[in-house]
Amino acid sequence: MNDASDLNAAPPAPQERLPTLNRRFDFGSYAETRHFLDQMADLSRREDYYPNVSFGKTYVNISIDAEGQAALAERNSSFTSEMEALAAAGKA
Amino acid sequence: MNDASDLNAAPPAPQERLPTLNRRFDFGSYAETRHFLDQMADLSRREDYYPNVSFGKTYVNISIDAEGQAALAERNSSFTSEMEALAAAGKA
Repeated sequence: MNDASDLNAAPPAPQERLPTLNRRFDFGSYAETRHFLDQMADLSRREDYYPNVSFGKTYVNISIDAEGQAALAERNSSFTSEMEALAAAGKA
Repeated sequence: MNDASDLNAAPPAPQERLPTLNRRFDFGSYAETRHFLDQMADLSRREDYYPNVSFGKTYVNISIDAEGQAALAERNSSFTSEMEALAAAGKA
């Protein structure tokens, strides 16, 4: 920054690098886990976003890295809230 | 080993603890990844074994821990070879 005019410019937008969002959901059975995974697949297709997913028989962990969070925010995507809603409904 | 008789005894059966088997499969598209995951779900149901699975848009990582490997071996399960065959077919 050699240009003195920069001194009066608005401060640059902070280059916030969000930490990876890790969300773990536990389920009572494999059937519930599977159902949630299928719905997450539909959600991914709809929102064209594919998080990293880890799962075992009765749990699912969803990871959304900084880049993913930025992309979703830019599109005003409701990906994460829909994910929470699906998980909550799936544990009924 | 303070007991001298141990020197002549047969060696104890090795308490082999197999390292976790991690197998990564890469795919050319999300559709291929998805197809493989669906087939793995069927395989899990059939063999009643649920490995830990991680996946993103174009990869799947399957982890089978020592306990899982022992359980599958005891049942003479063809889980791992079927998994390899599904992945190979899915990348056609």
